[in-house]
Amino acid sequence: MKITILGTGMVGMTIAEKLTTLGHQITMGTRDPETTISRPTPATWKKIPFGDWLNAQNSVVLETFENSAKEADLVLNATSGGVTLKALDMVGKDLNGKILIDIANPLDFSNGMPPTLSVCNTDSLGEQIQARFPEVKVVKSLNTMNTYIMMHPETIPGDHTVFVSGNDSEAKKAVSNLLQEIGWTEGNIIDLGDISTSRGTEMLLPVWLRLWGALGHANFNFQIQQA
Amino acid sequence: MKITILGTGMVGMTIAEKLTTLGHQITMGTRDPETTISRPTPATWKKIPFGDWLNAQNSVVLETFENSAKEADLVLNATSGGVTLKALDMVGKDLNGKILIDIANPLDFSNGMPPTLSVCNTDSLGEQIQARFPEVKVVKSLNTMNTYIMMHPETIPGDHTVFVSGNDSEAKKAVSNLLQEIGWTEGNIIDLGDISTSRGTEMLLPVWLRLWGALGHANFNFQIQQA
Repeated sequence: MKITILGTGMVGMTIAEKLTTLGHQITMGTRDPETTISRPTPATWKKIPFGDWLNAQNSVVLETFENSAKEADLVLNATSGGVTLKALDMVGKDLNGKILIDIANPLDFSNGMPPTLSVCNTDSLGEQIQARFPEVKVVKSLNTMNTYIMMHPETIPGDHTVFVSGNDSEAKKAVSNLLQEIGWTEGNIIDLGDISTSRGTEMLLPVWLRLWGALGHANFNFQIQQA
Repeated sequence: MKITILGTGMVGMTIAEKLTTLGHQITMGTRDPETTISRPTPATWKKIPFGDWLNAQNSVVLETFENSAKEADLVLNATSGGVTLKALDMVGKDLNGKILIDIANPLDFSNGMPPTLSVCNTDSLGEQIQARFPEVKVVKSLNTMNTYIMMHPETIPGDHTVFVSGNDSEAKKAVSNLLQEIGWTEGNIIDLGDISTSRGTEMLLPVWLRLWGALGHANFNFQIQQA
């Protein structure tokens, strides 16, 4: 598939690497490609500038948000939750009719650590995206774990869970298929229901952040253990 | 131990039954014992009036909130989140110096189903209780699963998690010991940190409620699966 990843941070890079190995053609969208390429500090976990990383990829194309999704079969939002709506506005009507996997969380760092959520309880980022882009098939998923585990679920032993939320059943099925390509077993993918169930998964972040502190590492995931 | 359970609903009844079998002396607190005893409808999952249930218990005493905690070694809040602060006010200064296990969630049913939270994100019911009763050792726990699983963790196969949050380490240790008496293994008890971490566990409720819908039953629990 032609997959557009919006966002060029650690999250976007990790996803691009994995989806490339699966044979997908990846375009990454950013506000200003020149600035991204020349990002001077080794600001990522890779400890290399983005341009060096990009040169080492076989088939990842970097584009402006505006030009990133024209050919896409599927779009994945890996921007920070706080700038997601602005970034999607720049992509604009090229999103229409497409599946948008939203993995962002509306984290608000303005009041210090740990972050709070800028929207929750009676609304969610997933719902805000769906409301703003009614012709896009928004599927919230993968937002309840660290990026490496999203793309390498085998890192965690045993069964553990990935949620999907969305209004379009066919879109959720397509996302489920992509998750299975990545390595998620069908039994570990839980369809919570429509996009309003994004509230629940985004509201997992506060306990996720505290678990990170309590356990001293982020290599964990939620498993729904059933009787 | 002499344990006072505040609240006489299904939650309080299930906990009283279990703690009685473990040899603890149970007092249950309610607003008006006469009303509770004569509660005419079979309103509980037991399908029997509260008075009949109480008569069948060997050693459960029913008291007003005001008189319920005078002799208690430990108090457990099993009232609905929406009335918790009012109930605790009625218990009053008998709570001082004691451990209060808070298992309630601030569910708000006023906007229909599923309920939202009346407090979250920047505050929590656990924190509100601690702020209102600074001399009480509040430990939030057990609020992330259904009541039967709280008291019968062996219902769910394999490992699954119970969280504890609180400012007093000794109090959390005492609660952890009680949890182990109930059947929780030490490795499945995660101390998240101070009482502000109640935000995280209370904010698990929205996804818990949606999982109940998606799975079609409430016999599940969160397991933190680690690499």
